[in-house]
Amino acid sequence: MKVRFVTSNEHKFQEVKRMLSRVAEVIWVNIEYPEVQAASLEEVATFSARWLEDKVERPFFLEDSGLFIEALNGFPGPFSSYVFRTIGNEGILKLMQGVSHRRATFKSVIALMDRELHLFVGSSPGEIAEEIRGGGWGFDPIFIPDGSNGLTFGELGERKDEFSHRGRSVRELLNYLVRRNS
Amino acid sequence: MKVRFVTSNEHKFQEVKRMLSRVAEVIWVNIEYPEVQAASLEEVATFSARWLEDKVERPFFLEDSGLFIEALNGFPGPFSSYVFRTIGNEGILKLMQGVSHRRATFKSVIALMDRELHLFVGSSPGEIAEEIRGGGWGFDPIFIPDGSNGLTFGELGERKDEFSHRGRSVRELLNYLVRRNS
Repeated sequence: MKVRFVTSNEHKFQEVKRMLSRVAEVIWVNIEYPEVQAASLEEVATFSARWLEDKVERPFFLEDSGLFIEALNGFPGPFSSYVFRTIGNEGILKLMQGVSHRRATFKSVIALMDRELHLFVGSSPGEIAEEIRGGGWGFDPIFIPDGSNGLTFGELGERKDEFSHRGRSVRELLNYLVRRNS
Repeated sequence: MKVRFVTSNEHKFQEVKRMLSRVAEVIWVNIEYPEVQAASLEEVATFSARWLEDKVERPFFLEDSGLFIEALNGFPGPFSSYVFRTIGNEGILKLMQGVSHRRATFKSVIALMDRELHLFVGSSPGEIAEEIRGGGWGFDPIFIPDGSNGLTFGELGERKDEFSHRGRSVRELLNYLVRRNS
């Protein structure tokens, strides 16, 4: 079967395409769509999918993710991309200076528009590191997922998939596609 | 003439209604509308006005405002409401700890949907205070507009209108309405 993935991020497309390769042919749809300001990723993804529904052939999906820090009331949450581009990892670490409660969750929501709309959610609970460690993208170098022996997403490299929020939401999507095709 | 103001904030409605009272009867339309994630207030306001155009009788307008801090690459900008609700004035002051360049601009954009769409922009340049001073709403207690002798918006009280970004965008709208009616 064919499924379209709407994203302007080629890196994200390649990653998800690889994970779905045994059940679906993933086609890249590189168009921009609006993301609404809302407190939850589910609302953001739903609004975007509805906006796209008469513009892209079904089934199609999009993905949105964010880092929710408990001590900061969920900040940066659905605004993670913007916050990363402006204050970056340094800004988050500065906000967390002297804060002992460092729990946070990286979350990914996939909105699939099939005959109807389906949401698939993946979460990765963990902690905010005390300093920047490792490479990767976005907030990867300051997020330590539970069970990684203290390594950040940035330090885990390829092993990140095992722990990652997006790895989990994509597996939920994969399970749905397997059931749909059987 | 009658003009509709779409906002869920009664305080904002009363303030703007008073400023426009000599040229227009302002009718309150209390409905929610989506605000898109974008780097400029102009884009946010335009998207919202287009979304509302077949839902509200013309002429109508909406207003969006934000605080743009130079040393933080424009943060929190169009996401000021969300950032205020999560990290608040304390968070902004923490991000600005040890930062000597404290220039910032409070900006307001009004999108008026008349026969066509018009944007009216008001700006208030100034500085981020070293500490919270005075009352007011949102980031008022940490913003010192140029020309206020060091007082924050929060300390200026009623005198805020003289300096304020929204005072200026509403005056631009008022000038337009005067020309339109003559």
